[in-house]
Amino acid sequence: QGVDLNADLGEGLGGRQLTDDEALLTMVTSANIACGFHAGDPSTMRRVCALAAARGVRIGAQVSYHDLVGFGRRPMEVPPRELADEVAYQIGALRVFAQAAGTELAYVKPHGALYNRIVWDESQADAVVDGILLTGADLPVLGLPGSAVHRAAAAARLPIVTEAFADRAYRPDGTLVPRTEPGAVISDPEQVIKRSVMMVTEGSVFAATGQRVPVAAESLCLHGDTPGAVELAARVREALIGAGVDIRPFV
Amino acid sequence: QGVDLNADLGEGLGGRQLTDDEALLTMVTSANIACGFHAGDPSTMRRVCALAAARGVRIGAQVSYHDLVGFGRRPMEVPPRELADEVAYQIGALRVFAQAAGTELAYVKPHGALYNRIVWDESQADAVVDGILLTGADLPVLGLPGSAVHRAAAAARLPIVTEAFADRAYRPDGTLVPRTEPGAVISDPEQVIKRSVMMVTEGSVFAATGQRVPVAAESLCLHGDTPGAVELAARVREALIGAGVDIRPFV
Amino acid sequence: QGVDLNADLGEGLGGRQLTDDEALLTMVTSANIACGFHAGDPSTMRRVCALAAARGVRIGAQVSYHDLVGFGRRPMEVPPRELADEVAYQIGALRVFAQAAGTELAYVKPHGALYNRIVWDESQADAVVDGILLTGADLPVLGLPGSAVHRAAAAARLPIVTEAFADRAYRPDGTLVPRTEPGAVISDPEQVIKRSVMMVTEGSVFAATGQRVPVAAESLCLHGDTPGAVELAARVREALIGAGVDIRPFV
Amino acid sequence: QGVDLNADLGEGLGGRQLTDDEALLTMVTSANIACGFHAGDPSTMRRVCALAAARGVRIGAQVSYHDLVGFGRRPMEVPPRELADEVAYQIGALRVFAQAAGTELAYVKPHGALYNRIVWDESQADAVVDGILLTGADLPVLGLPGSAVHRAAAAARLPIVTEAFADRAYRPDGTLVPRTEPGAVISDPEQVIKRSVMMVTEGSVFAATGQRVPVAAESLCLHGDTPGAVELAARVREALIGAGVDIRPFV
Repeated sequence: QGVDLNADLGEGLGGRQLTDDEALLTMVTSANIACGFHAGDPSTMRRVCALAAARGVRIGAQVSYHDLVGFGRRPMEVPPRELADEVAYQIGALRVFAQAAGTELAYVKPHGALYNRIVWDESQADAVVDGILLTGADLPVLGLPGSAVHRAAAAARLPIVTEAFADRAYRPDGTLVPRTEPGAVISDPEQVIKRSVMMVTEGSVFAATGQRVPVAAESLCLHGDTPGAVELAARVREALIGAGVDIRPFV
Repeated sequence: QGVDLNADLGEGLGGRQLTDDEALLTMVTSANIACGFHAGDPSTMRRVCALAAARGVRIGAQVSYHDLVGFGRRPMEVPPRELADEVAYQIGALRVFAQAAGTELAYVKPHGALYNRIVWDESQADAVVDGILLTGADLPVLGLPGSAVHRAAAAARLPIVTEAFADRAYRPDGTLVPRTEPGAVISDPEQVIKRSVMMVTEGSVFAATGQRVPVAAESLCLHGDTPGAVELAARVREALIGAGVDIRPFV
Repeated sequence: QGVDLNADLGEGLGGRQLTDDEALLTMVTSANIACGFHAGDPSTMRRVCALAAARGVRIGAQVSYHDLVGFGRRPMEVPPRELADEVAYQIGALRVFAQAAGTELAYVKPHGALYNRIVWDESQADAVVDGILLTGADLPVLGLPGSAVHRAAAAARLPIVTEAFADRAYRPDGTLVPRTEPGAVISDPEQVIKRSVMMVTEGSVFAATGQRVPVAAESLCLHGDTPGAVELAARVREALIGAGVDIRPFV
Repeated sequence: QGVDLNADLGEGLGGRQLTDDEALLTMVTSANIACGFHAGDPSTMRRVCALAAARGVRIGAQVSYHDLVGFGRRPMEVPPRELADEVAYQIGALRVFAQAAGTELAYVKPHGALYNRIVWDESQADAVVDGILLTGADLPVLGLPGSAVHRAAAAARLPIVTEAFADRAYRPDGTLVPRTEPGAVISDPEQVIKRSVMMVTEGSVFAATGQRVPVAAESLCLHGDTPGAVELAARVREALIGAGVDIRPFV
């Protein structure tokens, strides 16, 4: 029994570091690296790629809307063709640093508002997949189970990888409680740890309403940008290993 | 006897087109395509790459300082390591669209303030070459004869390609009269055409002071962003062909 | 009988000029000046403000989503509070240059995707009005008759100014035919001129379907970024004057 | 005996907060607020202005080169006229939020590479002062004693305010040891506290080489973006108060 651990990394800008990339890279097996559209400058991209490659952590392109000022949190009505081109641009830029680090780009995980949008927006989901295809690489798409982007990726014969969130509340239908609702984010570390282990070992989790919800995820998303994030990530990892789970990249 | 013709293309942004890319692509053999740092959005990059590839025009990465607001005209003291990473990022991004168009990126030509800076700044010249090497491709560097970036490229065993400017005045030592001086830019179309032919067929040109100056260039740079630019480019091309010159890419 | 003529100006960036600001300023009475979020750098803003003030042309803040790469053409789901702050920021920046030119900012006209969005989006319309109120100035809002932003402005006791488009097709209900539909933009100069005069002198125009539609506009929008735009603007202006219309600013 | 305490605030972007603005605002008397060119989005500017005004902390415009990706750390050769316009733009934008908070912009303190540049670059120093004058406000300039920008400000009859750095090593001539040299930054909290008190109560400090150097500063700069910054700022403040120093704004 095994699981991949992924986290957003390289979200610094101009020398300011937002996440403790070095520490998180000792815990995760997949690094979603910002590509410069919502965060991440070229030197940060290069540095984090080199660190990831040196530790055997897989490198994923964390593609985003072009919104540096808004950190990619604001949904945009980008025409599909334009969005595909923006995704391809970001993948091409990050690929240089993955290859310079002696490895290859391993997957794509959209960021923020784009991630949430392509859970349901078929047109933008298709555009993201078109952007990946433009790059000529059959990159797996890391995303929410049942999302539009996963359907689009499958239709284009791209591999899909499902993920779950240890610190997010689920609804009985398996979708996430939106962040705008109370209780959407679980802040108690003990709860997060318990849920992580349950998700991986039992393939389910308790919904906010009490029901057991199946959550079959190949990867668990850890958050790196909150206070105490690094320590919590370390504890989740330890708890999983203690429960006999093999922490390993999905690719 | 032959010569390459190059021009800056794809300098539009957000649907606004600055240069008549379609027309210029019927005249040049090498297209310096903006990579998003001084101009050029992903969709423009893709479109111009596709048009260039369809016509057999070579695609070059017109890398720049990161200065969209200033169109890359303002010199920046970017630390060399950072500059190398910025160059690699831009090349990686453009490469995706060259490959999607069924071809390969063929060369690099720095833009604006960066172009002028690395005529003499050894440190930034080395950084640009380091950026090219980071991408793993032995891309030729198109630049001014005798420039620091050409020395750096040669030292790194990258091919170098020299260029001349038909509409710029030269000093007796073969350098350009700076734009800040009167008479730096030659605006009379007849003069530009005459000088183009002389540069290519005789390998020399008259300096502002009257002396004949050797100008051995493998490529001639045409400007595409001035009124009448397209018509002038067409006339230069015709005059060269009329003088028995073979218009052909340098690679 | 009179009408105001407005046009988008100062949409250049980094020394590249998109519109012929000098020529257009001899024709319009109100200049919608870009504030740096979709186009327009500080030096362009200052220069165009000075030119406008010297000619007695009113200065309006052409506020936009923050999307330089997309020229503000892409709708964004900016939280209302954030949007209000972005509007206030742009107005504050432009106000400096209006005052430095010896005049005052006279009105606000949202740009592109934001303009279209606040025709119907109550929340963003309120946010734009909140942004204006934040600046402490009772600035008139130039917009489409019946738009949500006009309702919001009226509710906040801001003056509203209606505009019509001489080169756009109307539907029988007085709304514009969307640009995505055929015939949305009228390109025949004679038609544009005839409609301009009819709109102002008769207060109506023929819809695409043939009916006469009332169009009571205090300002007529001229486009400055198309080939032949300056010449067409001049002819519209002449035709209006010839029909006895007084061309005068609305404020 | 009194001194002003200033710190850089509002350097977040898109919801990410770089400095603990709330905590620092309980310690400083002057807040240098980022204006969107190196950091700081409109909502952050508004929020920090409101917090500062509520506490009676003075609001200063932390103007910068336009370099969001590089956090304003990279010197730029901006033509003086353009730089003046960029400074005026930023001041105008921030002024809106200061006024919305019921107060007025109180001073200007350039950021990062621009701050360092105008210690010696007369042309850019003049440009910064020209930018302030463009806004029509006689804003004091907070800067290094003896700097070119202070000479330019004095020549233009703008008030000047001198500052000292508690955590930076000084040379015998009163200039700072450059960050590129070892020992430039003093990281021992005890040393920083001791030097702060000595600077204010004795008007001097020990240079790296041991000599006593006169440091007559009206304001002491505290850094807010390092780990432990808030705690250190609190201790410096306490120590100063304990030594009988009155912590008060310079304006």
